[in-house]
This record gives sequence, structure tokens and C-alpha cells, in this order.
Amino acid sequence: MSGVVGVYSKDMDHVSKLVYYGLYSLQHRGQVSSGIAVNNNGFVDYHKDLGLVHEVFPAEVMERLRGNIALGHVRYGFSEEGRHTRNVEPLVVGYRKGALALVHDGKLVNFEKIRDELEEMGSIFQSDLDAEVIANLMARYHKDDVNQAVIKALGEISGSYALIIMTSDRLIGARDPYGLKPLSIGKFKGGYILASETCAFDTMGAEFIRNVGPGEIIVIDDKGIETIKNEPKQRSLCLFDMIYFARPDTKLDGRSIYLSRNEAGRILAREHPVDADIVIGAPDSGIVAAIGYAQESNLPYGEGIVKNRYVGRTFIQPTQELRDLGVRIKLNALKENVEGKRLVLVDDSIVRGTTIKRTVKMLKDAGAKEVHVRISSPPVIRSCHLGMDTPNEDFLIAANYSKDEICKMIGADSLEYLSLEGLLESTGQNQGYCTGCFTGNYPINKED
Amino acid sequence: MSGVVGVYSKDMDHVSKLVYYGLYSLQHRGQVSSGIAVNNNGFVDYHKDLGLVHEVFPAEVMERLRGNIALGHVRYGFSEEGRHTRNVEPLVVGYRKGALALVHDGKLVNFEKIRDELEEMGSIFQSDLDAEVIANLMARYHKDDVNQAVIKALGEISGSYALIIMTSDRLIGARDPYGLKPLSIGKFKGGYILASETCAFDTMGAEFIRNVGPGEIIVIDDKGIETIKNEPKQRSLCLFDMIYFARPDTKLDGRSIYLSRNEAGRILAREHPVDADIVIGAPDSGIVAAIGYAQESNLPYGEGIVKNRYVGRTFIQPTQELRDLGVRIKLNALKENVEGKRLVLVDDSIVRGTTIKRTVKMLKDAGAKEVHVRISSPPVIRSCHLGMDTPNEDFLIAANYSKDEICKMIGADSLEYLSLEGLLESTGQNQGYCTGCFTGNYPINKED
Amino acid sequence: MSGVVGVYSKDMDHVSKLVYYGLYSLQHRGQVSSGIAVNNNGFVDYHKDLGLVHEVFPAEVMERLRGNIALGHVRYGFSEEGRHTRNVEPLVVGYRKGALALVHDGKLVNFEKIRDELEEMGSIFQSDLDAEVIANLMARYHKDDVNQAVIKALGEISGSYALIIMTSDRLIGARDPYGLKPLSIGKFKGGYILASETCAFDTMGAEFIRNVGPGEIIVIDDKGIETIKNEPKQRSLCLFDMIYFARPDTKLDGRSIYLSRNEAGRILAREHPVDADIVIGAPDSGIVAAIGYAQESNLPYGEGIVKNRYVGRTFIQPTQELRDLGVRIKLNALKENVEGKRLVLVDDSIVRGTTIKRTVKMLKDAGAKEVHVRISSPPVIRSCHLGMDTPNEDFLIAANYSKDEICKMIGADSLEYLSLEGLLESTGQNQGYCTGCFTGNYPINKED
Amino acid sequence: MSGVVGVYSKDMDHVSKLVYYGLYSLQHRGQVSSGIAVNNNGFVDYHKDLGLVHEVFPAEVMERLRGNIALGHVRYGFSEEGRHTRNVEPLVVGYRKGALALVHDGKLVNFEKIRDELEEMGSIFQSDLDAEVIANLMARYHKDDVNQAVIKALGEISGSYALIIMTSDRLIGARDPYGLKPLSIGKFKGGYILASETCAFDTMGAEFIRNVGPGEIIVIDDKGIETIKNEPKQRSLCLFDMIYFARPDTKLDGRSIYLSRNEAGRILAREHPVDADIVIGAPDSGIVAAIGYAQESNLPYGEGIVKNRYVGRTFIQPTQELRDLGVRIKLNALKENVEGKRLVLVDDSIVRGTTIKRTVKMLKDAGAKEVHVRISSPPVIRSCHLGMDTPNEDFLIAANYSKDEICKMIGADSLEYLSLEGLLESTGQNQGYCTGCFTGNYPINKED
Repeated sequence: MSGVVGVYSKDMDHVSKLVYYGLYSLQHRGQVSSGIAVNNNGFVDYHKDLGLVHEVFPAEVMERLRGNIALGHVRYGFSEEGRHTRNVEPLVVGYRKGALALVHDGKLVNFEKIRDELEEMGSIFQSDLDAEVIANLMARYHKDDVNQAVIKALGEISGSYALIIMTSDRLIGARDPYGLKPLSIGKFKGGYILASETCAFDTMGAEFIRNVGPGEIIVIDDKGIETIKNEPKQRSLCLFDMIYFARPDTKLDGRSIYLSRNEAGRILAREHPVDADIVIGAPDSGIVAAIGYAQESNLPYGEGIVKNRYVGRTFIQPTQELRDLGVRIKLNALKENVEGKRLVLVDDSIVRGTTIKRTVKMLKDAGAKEVHVRISSPPVIRSCHLGMDTPNEDFLIAANYSKDEICKMIGADSLEYLSLEGLLESTGQNQGYCTGCFTGNYPINKED
Repeated sequence: MSGVVGVYSKDMDHVSKLVYYGLYSLQHRGQVSSGIAVNNNGFVDYHKDLGLVHEVFPAEVMERLRGNIALGHVRYGFSEEGRHTRNVEPLVVGYRKGALALVHDGKLVNFEKIRDELEEMGSIFQSDLDAEVIANLMARYHKDDVNQAVIKALGEISGSYALIIMTSDRLIGARDPYGLKPLSIGKFKGGYILASETCAFDTMGAEFIRNVGPGEIIVIDDKGIETIKNEPKQRSLCLFDMIYFARPDTKLDGRSIYLSRNEAGRILAREHPVDADIVIGAPDSGIVAAIGYAQESNLPYGEGIVKNRYVGRTFIQPTQELRDLGVRIKLNALKENVEGKRLVLVDDSIVRGTTIKRTVKMLKDAGAKEVHVRISSPPVIRSCHLGMDTPNEDFLIAANYSKDEICKMIGADSLEYLSLEGLLESTGQNQGYCTGCFTGNYPINKED
Repeated sequence: MSGVVGVYSKDMDHVSKLVYYGLYSLQHRGQVSSGIAVNNNGFVDYHKDLGLVHEVFPAEVMERLRGNIALGHVRYGFSEEGRHTRNVEPLVVGYRKGALALVHDGKLVNFEKIRDELEEMGSIFQSDLDAEVIANLMARYHKDDVNQAVIKALGEISGSYALIIMTSDRLIGARDPYGLKPLSIGKFKGGYILASETCAFDTMGAEFIRNVGPGEIIVIDDKGIETIKNEPKQRSLCLFDMIYFARPDTKLDGRSIYLSRNEAGRILAREHPVDADIVIGAPDSGIVAAIGYAQESNLPYGEGIVKNRYVGRTFIQPTQELRDLGVRIKLNALKENVEGKRLVLVDDSIVRGTTIKRTVKMLKDAGAKEVHVRISSPPVIRSCHLGMDTPNEDFLIAANYSKDEICKMIGADSLEYLSLEGLLESTGQNQGYCTGCFTGNYPINKED
Repeated sequence: MSGVVGVYSKDMDHVSKLVYYGLYSLQHRGQVSSGIAVNNNGFVDYHKDLGLVHEVFPAEVMERLRGNIALGHVRYGFSEEGRHTRNVEPLVVGYRKGALALVHDGKLVNFEKIRDELEEMGSIFQSDLDAEVIANLMARYHKDDVNQAVIKALGEISGSYALIIMTSDRLIGARDPYGLKPLSIGKFKGGYILASETCAFDTMGAEFIRNVGPGEIIVIDDKGIETIKNEPKQRSLCLFDMIYFARPDTKLDGRSIYLSRNEAGRILAREHPVDADIVIGAPDSGIVAAIGYAQESNLPYGEGIVKNRYVGRTFIQPTQELRDLGVRIKLNALKENVEGKRLVLVDDSIVRGTTIKRTVKMLKDAGAKEVHVRISSPPVIRSCHLGMDTPNEDFLIAANYSKDEICKMIGADSLEYLSLEGLLESTGQNQGYCTGCFTGNYPINKED
């Protein structure tokens, strides 16, 4: 998972600052690495490193990064590869026609195949990035017009992508034919913005225009915005963006995340009511659905867990001795809403099951009489090959255990999941989503 | 405002780590500086600096700080003095009887007078800390037994204090006779803990025993806990700890912060109902009262504002040009709950009025039809001389303008404050609080 | 200019540490960036960044870099390109046959031409490095045996190079046919070492075996060292390595730097004697020649200038106001050897003339009666296109002014240069050196 | 050992910058900690920390430190105390009359006694600094005129000191009655400078006026310089400043360090001639004496050892395994001047003997036929209690072994020391020095 943002302006000479604030508003999509590239009349400079946006970009670096076109990237990066400096985006390369910079959210399924073909032709690779494969493809088509080269290059790749490409004179945005990854277009006084989520537009002082459509490629240059290709297949936006990833103040393909999550909580309450005293959410991802659950069930909503807001990445983890003492850093039960109470604990999903187990234990330790776990999505039974950083199926608890077994393992008094139908209904659209993690039905299969 | 924590153990040799986690859970009480001192058989080592707990204490420093008694401090520090390295606590000194370390939350009113007297006798001062005056007083009584010296020294000071003192063999906790500042006692497998808030005990794996009482001085050593003085006056706990400062999962003098704030919201709803569509809270301080207001008024509670959780202190502030563009970093309106809606916006207090003004504007920009501001405390009309870092009265909006004027200034459709009676009722105790900031009646007067 | 080092061991699993110490001993060849790549059974990891060796490599990074083959690089980097992160070596790439890592000292003259050809074929470039061109060439020959691929790739390039290449199972060293850049082979208990200078062997606990010859390509693997190509042209080692760059305890192609510089000073004394009181050297580069000059002329040698040994790169430069006051940071005249004295000031070369001018002024300010400047090399009249980072000819003082004019400009009482014959004689070999900077006769011409 | 510097100007408002450059030129006197205090119309600000001058003072801190009077300090700090933040100078305190800042080079012998007395009267101490005792004494005399208070306070202390005190309106310099520690007065366009060594004046663009005399106290204020006390005893300047500590371009009490060391080498050559091929110096401290030895003995002087100039404090030390391989970081033998040669190795002193042993071994490993060690000072047999950071006598090799034993232990072919008479003669003054480390005769005895 990643967050991408791009800015094109005719007149402003320091749009990297806008990218900075845009990335900042997308930091929830990735905290491992940050990078910005900027185009100053065909000369591309960039800066990128491991770390959060505000760590990677001190004022003097931002001062240096001048130009009227820019793009940026933040990465989630669970894997070891994702945390190596060689894989920090943007990818910036020179080719026959000048400079190219690329940022990518998603995952190609034919990466290995194309890379093999390219290597066979003599290409070298300096990263594990899909973007490097794409840049190589574009470079192979350098004799074509730039827009044609993009169309041809993207015609060869398969998988999920929201892609922004910066050339010496234009900004290109593209989304895979299934629209697995989101990408939206915004407008501000000085020009245009592309971003993974619409919340970036609010932060950047821009206005949402429309989404890049599945299978659409758009070009932004001094003549405005032009669609150079538009061949959608059945839209299959990743449901996890809805459920977990995106910020509640974002709209994805026109649908408010907040409303979807709130509605998911409401439907969950209808599907799986429970006699209880109070509804609480797991911070921060379960809060919105919990509010919805409470509204629908007419149970009082309350805060049951307090989160320490000052967690730094350099924090010293407690030793086993201290954990045995009961030292607990990030979360604390709010006894007044927990002690002696029958709780409904709402969370967005269960992946490995370790976090929910710890949370249930904390609530019980704090005196909860009952803890009824309600999950606002179905059981996750497949590991995604299209860009969600889910672990191997061996580690997916629902791929290996029944609901009752899981309920026992996490120490809950009851456990229920939202049905897939309920989840789809909560989106207000009923269709247009990839349900692979819950059903195994992905729009694109893994390649061997 | 500060957070203090102390640990005494007979057997553990590395209690500084517990202090570290304790400070971490009190980080909301101060983000400017952090420090820990530790006693290793009479030899006191310490480390302190400007910065958050996780920034000031890398692993190798924590490794060095060994011993069975320790204390720590975090400081709020609005003022220039509060942000100078000379004023980072703990204060660690040597005197006739060995080492002393002190941490202090509060503010003395006779600091100048005593410091003058001490200087007249030849004392030098290396900080602006009340703690240095107290250490000097203790040193003047070095011929007395240590406990007697503490009693005598504290007998000379006036003002607000929650104080922890570490000597070569004991930990001493003290609270001013009015109990203006909170201090609680916890117990864990390895010994005892003193802390500003009970949420530290949960984090540290300890159990709350009781509060240090107003006017009480306790000593923790190898014989256990002993009260060596107990001369309370009318308890006058700072209401701002209730309203704003303390973490919701804390109990202050037996009263749950969460319940108080929730109750304040409920009373506010009864005192100042309004016909509206949804109740939202200002993050993070207004959330609990907003939930209470919604519950009591039977209006739906919703999230109306999303806060970026990745704000770092080194973040680059937008220039005026970018602010003009509308670049907005920390907060964003959640349009689904705002657009076209009549909002009740609940916040805990209005001090200068700048934040609430910005928030109202953001909500209106996002399409709110009406914004009714409800404040879960009375107007702040006095600047505190007892430790709350409120600005000069010239900057207190309610000290200079009427409610109607303020309503207009902040752009709200209506503005109401919780009454003082309502606020006191919300504490479930009706009395025992300092109301100075709202009434001008402080239990201790400013000295000239 | 750069320093390169490579290590091959059959048995040791942490040879990156040796590379670290090797780079450290070559730090005088480059202070802008540092990097190490390591091969762990075909898996190549690396770390590189701007900064000195001890800044770029903290202990935990060195701990991570494990494997039995490794190479490293330090860069001089006057130019803006040389100081950009994209141009930090080693270059590490994947290609058809696995991983490749390259480090390079020197400069290709047909870089643009080959890069154009490669781009024409669809290659992309992520740096301005010659090494990236070489890696691409090797990748184009991936169907050949690795050694053949190296031979073919190097057959296409022209220019100066000392090159170390690491593949999944071997270390390859190569020197251009003219031997413009130095590269030596050492042996230690655990295996073999390649390094720019022999002083690295002393630091690393290794023994010098022999030099890689001009036009030679060697391969080190589990079978030992093998020469796979050996087609030298007339050896033309860069004279500036002798005069200025290399450490005095290094031997280049068998010739001791110390002896050469000492001998240059002696010949300079014979060519340009002067009646004076004392001979001093410009620190640090003129010291050895000054000792030689003194020995030959029977004038006393003395230290005339003291250098501050604690100059850090983050040092705050004095403002003009302070410079006007006479604030002088790095160098100070040693009055006892200067005041009232007739000095011979020996330095290794004059490039722009600014440093020598400042030095002469400092000596005169300190009371020197006469300052006779003697330069142990001829006037620099050409800007090098083969890897010496000399400035454009507009900035070469001797390319624009006569000796007498320069003497006046730098404020000296007399100025003499060592003759080219003298310089060649000082090497003890009389031939085998590139004299281009002094004569314009380079063994390889610039390509357009 | 420490370096101190102070600046007084009527007109300049940013003299902290001059102190910065002054400290920088005195960095050889201490690399552990650095600090500057500055007086802005009675308001004293300061910054200090562990680290080199250029590390402790970034540009924004220097920008903050404004005012027309300032002083600074660098500390050597072998001991654990010397490396703790509590002992970083300047000491800055407030007392009855305002602010005081103090920097001190030296060591009091009655520190414990006075501190006990002060503690008995109720004083507290926040450091182990002599300066804190002095500040307390001054504060006790606050009813006196400031100058009188200084005279009285210094009248109570005994030991070695070069002291600079800054009050709200003046700069005070003082030297102990024996003049054990050096302090000089300089003049520049904007005012006056006090510094440990005259090389600071050259760096700061100032002119040496005269030394502060033993037992002299001077005051610099808007009326100029005034001597307020002058009661010298027999001058006893520390010989180690001459031999080892001071920079060669410094004059101490009128005597050039360079000339003394050169002369010491000459006398050493007369006292202990040896039939050899070349004279080399141990870098950097033995170089000047080696040149003198060579001049006097008519043996050629040469460089025998090359020092790596890029040693950083964060450098990773080689493991035992690597040391066994022969990894050697800082120094390397220059084979051309060593191999097969009979060497005279000159160093300034032997303390523990470990360094010289390692050096001799390195030279022998490099093929030296003979190594004759010549030390330009007598055997060190006593540990200094007056401020030299010599180790306990158990670790002083000459306090425990005979010359012949030491010669064998360090692997030399012969070992000779300069006689005390020779050393005193080398100073050109024959008297006025403390010889305690060589004779046990200190001008001031240790107090119990």
C-alpha cells in the first residue's frame, strides 16, 4: 500500500511544497518511506529516504526542490524489501527523451515475466519496484510520442495500479482497468492535483473534480486535462481501502468512507445484535463503525479504550520482565465504560488475530463482564496478490480456524462478522469492489 | 503544567524503565522536556533534555540509568523560560547529606520572596525552578532528620505543588494543603509508585491504592509507606485538570475524568439545548463532552472533524501564500456529517478564541448550515498564578468581550457556556475545586 | 577522484568490516560520499549515503552487511552531480545473471556516446555514473560467460578507470589500458584485497602482492586470482595522484609517493635555489617536498604554518565582518619561524591560486621578510577530462597568466615551478605518466 | 585540562561568534564538552553540551546567543565526571546581584574543604565543578563590591586556576598565585579578549598585549582594563602545557612553545646522541622536538609515521579478530623512511607506555633495523593533583619500572629521557615551572 500525489501548475515554481502537504495528509497510507521529485524546466531533482514526511524533508531540502510539476510517494512497507532504501519512490530515471519520474500504488502480477523479458534484452534493475519495469517499458517505446508510449507500456502490464508519471512537460495519471487502486483529480488556483484520496485536496486547498476511471489514462499539461485512453473493465476497487485504509474524510470513487463505515456498523448491528450495555470501537479503525452500530442498536456509544497519542517510532519496547509486570504502552481500558459492563467491541477486520486478542484481554482485565466482538467485514481467508500487504495465509487466522475457534482463541464471549452482502450494501453501491480477500475471487489471477 | 512520577523498589535494580513508561503515559501533561533521575545505592545519575520521552531517552541512556529508586518529569512549557535547558527537571543536587532529586508540578506564590531571602544569605541559583528553592530550604535544615527537613521546608512555601523528592534511601511525595495539583499512590509487585495521574499505574502494571491528600507528606522507604504530615485545608483541585489536562482514563481524587466530562456534556445539553442535526466534538478535548451532550439531548453523535495523527514537531509550516491557497494541515471537516447540517460543536473551553474561530470557519467552509458552539466550562476570565499556563488577561477573550461579542467574533450561530454550578455538579462532588480562572476566587492569592 | 576497495574471502562472513577500514584509509581520496555493498551467497545488500565513512556507517548497519565478498567506494565530488545521492557508489543492479555491484575511479570519454546508444535501445539511467553505463554493457552480454561479458563490456569503453566489479561469486578488478588510475592487489589471511592505494593494505592487515597492470582484467574467486585479459598500452598514470592525491605511505605502480615527493623537492631545490633562512611546507600537501627541498639546499627545515586539526564540515564560516576583523580558522603562521625570516614556501601545485595567495598573505602579515614560493610541479594549464576534478580552464591561473604575473598576484617575492623533466625524474621512472594537465598531451582525447 | 576564552566589547552585539572561533582554536585543550555564555545587558543566556565546538553550536544557536560580553570553555575530561552533562562549563548562576558565568582551567586542592563548609551552611551543589564553589563564595560576599567579592572569594581557594568570570557588566580574569595555568590578554578592534593560549588571538584577529600574571586579578569593563589585585608567588607554570598541551604557535608567559620544543629536541640530541640513519617524530606531539633533534644531531629528519586525518569519534573500533588480522586504523609506518633503517623516534613524554609500545612495534613490523626512543621530557613519576589529567601512579610506567625495564617493555633498542635541567633550559628561562610530575615537588600540596 502506498499514497501517491502529483501537482501540475503552469505558473507556480514551488509546487513541491503542495506535494509535501499532500503526502502529509496521506501519511496514513504509509509511514516507512517518503519521497518527492520535482521538474524544473526539464531538469528533475528529487529527495527521498526512509521515514515520515516531516522527518525526510527538512526546510532546506524543500527549499531546493523547485519547479512547476512535482510528484510524491509514501509507502506502507511491511516486508524487508519495502523497508530498503533501494525501494523508496519516486523512481527517477533518464531515458532517450529526458527525465521520467514515477510513483505507484498497487502491485503488478506479471512483474516477474516482464522483468525477465527485459533482462533477457539486457536491462538492469536497481530496485524491486513495479515502477522500474514500467519505466523500462516506456523507454523501449521512446520512438513513439510520449502519450503513445504510456499507452503501450501500460498495455503490457497487468495487476493493480494507481500511477502518476512526470515527464519533462506533463503529468500523467493512470488507473488499472479494474480500478483496484483509487486515484482522484483535483483543481486549485494554480493548476491540477492527482491524489490517492480526496482528503489530500482538502489539505492542499483544492477542489475535487472527478476520479480517474478504471482503465483511464489522463494527461495534464499546459493545455489542460485530456483523457488519452479509457478502457475500463468491471470496476473492482479494493474493499480494504474502504474498510481500513482510507481516511474517513475521503471519498473513493464517489463514496464517502465515513458513511460506508458508519453504514457497515449499522448493518452489522442488524445482522448480529446483542444484548449489551455499551458499544465501543477499537481505536482508531473501529470507531466509525462502532458509532453506527450504537446508533442502529440503540445502545449507548462510549469510548472504551484510550490511545496514547505520543507513540514515537524510536520508543523503547518493554522487556518480557516488564510485560510480565503488566506494562502496557499504547492502549488503556477506560474503566468507567468497561468495568462490570457487557461490551460490544467493534473493529474493522481480523487478520492475524493478535491485536483483537490483546484488546479483549485488556478489557476483561479492566473488569468487563462480557465482550462481544463484532467485525465490520467478513473473515479474511486469502492473502492478497494485488497490493494489500496481508500476510501469508498460514498467518490468517480465519483461513485456518472456524469462527467458534477464533472466538475462543481471542477470549471473546461472542464473535460475529459482517456478511459480504452487508459489506457491499454498506458501500451504497452493492458492486464494483474486489472481494478477493473474503472470497478468493480476484479480478486478476496470480501469475506463476 | 507538568507530569511527575516516582518509583521505589526494594529489589528491582532498573526502575528507571518503569519511570520511562510512566512518563510516557503522562506525555499529554508536557511535551517540551523530559528527565529521569535514578538512585543507585546513594549515587544519583540522571539524564534530561528538551524533547519528548522517546526522543530524550535512547536505549543506551536507559541502560545506564540503573538503581532501585527513580523519578521523572515532563513539562508543558509555553514560556521561553519553560523551554530553556536550565529549567529541565528533575533538579538533582548534592547537599550535606548526599544527593537530592526533585520533580514538581505546580507553582509557588512566594518563590520570589524565598529566593530573595536565600540569595541574601548567599545562595546561588542555576534555574528558575521552584524546585531549586525547595532544595535550598531542605539543605538549610540538613541538621534535622530528613523527614523533618522536608516538613520544615514545605512549611515555608506557599502555592500549588505535587512534589516528589528522592533522597539516598527514600522517596517522598507531597501535595500542597489545598491539593491544587493531583498526586496518587500505586503499588506493583516490586514496590510503590507516585504519579500525577492514575492512568500511569495502568500503563506501568500497577494498582491504584489511594491519593496523596491535600497537605499530606508521605515517605516511601524499606519499611513501606508512612504519612509524616497531614494538614489539609479546604481541597481546591484545579478544575482545568478535570476539564482539559488529565487523560480520560485517569481518576483525580477519586473522580473519573471521563465521567466528569461526559456528565459536563449532559448538563450542558440540559442548560443549553439547541435544535440541531448532529453533535460533534472538537478533537481531542471536546469529544467526551460531545458524546455526553448527544446522549442527553437525543441528538445523533458523529465525528465532524478528522485530525491528522502524524503531526511531527519538525513539520514545515505553510507560508502565507499556501495558507491563502487554503492549505490546512492538522484538521479537516468530515463533509458527510457537516454539509447542510445544523451542528452542535462541543469544546472543553475557550481561552484565546483563535482555535474555535478557525474550527467554526472550517465547518462553515465545509457547508455547515449552522454551528452552535457549546463549551463545557464557564468563560475563562482570569489568568492563573497557580500553575495553569493561561495567557495574560489581555489575551483571554472572555475577560475582554461579552458572550455575544465572542459569538460574533468566532462566527458561530450561537454560543453557550456551561454554568459554574453545572461544572461543579459534573464532578459528582460539587465542591473541592479551585474555580479561580472562572471567578477570580483563588484559595491562595498572588504575592507581590 | 575516488577511492575503491574490494575484498574476497572464501571463509570470512563479515568482510564488509575490512572494506570499512579500507575505505577509511582511503578517505583522503574522497569525503563527499561513502558506500559498501556485500555479497551473501548471491544476495547483495548495500548501504551508501553522502558523508564520511564513519558518519555513513553506524555499528548496526555494519552488523547487517554480512557476506564473504564486498566492495566499497569514497568520492571526492566537487561538482553538484558528485554531491547528489543518485551518484553515490557502489552501483548495485540486478541483471539476467543475478546481482552486480560496481565501484569506479576515473572518467570515461565515450560515456555520452554509449549512453546514447543504450538509450536508443531502450535503456533507462538512474544516475550520471560511468558505472551505470558499464553495468548496462555487461547486461547486454549476459548470454556470454561473466568473464567474457566483462572483457566485451570494457572493450567498448574508453577513458580512465580503476574498476572493481562484484558478481554473485567473484570479484573482478580492471584498469584502463593506459593505467591512468591506480589499482593494487593485496593478500591477507582470509583472502584477497583490491584497493586504489597500498596504504589500505597496511590498514587492513594485508600484504601487497602486485599492481593490476594497465589494460589488465583480473578475476578473484574460489580458485584464486586469474588474469583474463592483459592488453596494456603505454602506461600513463595520472601525475596528480603522485603529486597531490595519494597518501605518502602508498606505492603507486611500485613507486613510493613519499620518495617521489621528497625527490621532487630535492630537484626543485637544484632547479630553483634561493638564498633564504628557512624552508617551510604548505600543510599538508607541501610538507614532504619541503623536507626534500631543505635537505638538498642545506637550508633548515621548519614548520611555518600550524593547522587546526579539528575542522568539522558543519563549522560555521565567519561572516565578512569577522573576516575583516582578521578571524582565521584553519591555518596560523608560526611566528617564531616566520617573523623577520626569508622563507621558501613549498607547495605541491597551484590550480586557481587562491589558497597560495592567502597563505603568502598570512606569512607576510606574520612578519616574513621574503616569501619565495616553490612549486613541486609545473604550471597547470589544462583542465582534465580523465577524472581529475580540475576546474574549467578559465579558472586555472597558469592558463591565463604568466609566471611573473602570478608571482605578483599572489604577493610572493619569487615564484618558481619544478620543470616537467624534473617532475618525471622525481618519479624515479622518467616515463609512464600522463602529463596532460601540464602539456595538453593526454593519452586519450576528449570525445565530442 | 581545559581551554577558556572571554570577550568584552563596548559596541559589538554578537561577540559569542568570536568566542566560538576562539574555542575552536583551543579545541586541542579539550574535546569532550563545549559551552558559551553571553551577556545581553545583564540578561545571560548560554548553550553548552558534550561534543566538539562545531557539533555543539549549530548556526541557529549562535544566532540566539547575542550580547557584548561572552565567555566559553572546552574540556578535556578523561574521567567519568568530566564526561557528564552536569559538569559542562560555563557555570551560569544567578545570585543577589544578578547573573554570574564562570569558566575555569585548573584544579583546586581545598575544594572538598570549602564545599563541606558551604554545605554546612546550607549550600546545594549541582555539579562537581570548582567553579561552583567559587560562585558560592562570591555569592556569600554579595554585600561587597563585585571586585572585592572576587578578591575575597579567590582569597579562600587554593590550587591551580586560570579563571574568567562574567558579571552583568564586566569580565574578570584571574590566575592562581603560582601561575600554574596560563591566561593571556589580547586586544582587537572591538575590545578585549582573555584566552588560555595566544594562538586564540591569531585566530580571532586580535593582538597579544600581555599575560595575566601569577596572582593577578584583572577587570575589563567600559573603562578598560584594571588590575585589582597582584600578589604573585614564585611562578610555577605547568610544564606539561609546554611539553604537550599547548599549540606550537602559542606563547606561554612570553615563551614560544615551538621554540621550547625545538630546543628540547636539540638538548636531547646533545644529552643522548645515537648513531642512526634518520630522526622521526611521533605524530603529532613529537614532531617539533624531532626536527630539533635532527637539526642538532645532523641526522636527516624524515616522516616515519603517517596519521589518518579523518578519525571521527563515532568510528567503529576493530574487533579482536580484526586486530589479530593486523587492522590498524590511525597510524601507519612510512616504509621508505623506516625499512632497514636505524631510527631515532622522538616523542614528548611517556605516561602509561602503551602508545609508544604500539608505535615501536609498528616501526619494527615495517622493517626498522633499530628504534632508539628519545623522550623530550623526564620520566613521569607522579600523578598530578593540580589539573593535569594524569592517571593514578599505578598506571605511570616510570613510577613502577626502571628505564631499562621500560626500554625492554616497549621493545626499543635504547631509551633515553631529557634531563630535568635540559627541559628547564629548553624553556629559555630555566625556572618558573612546576616540575611536580617529574620530581614530586609541587608548589601546592594535596589536601586531605
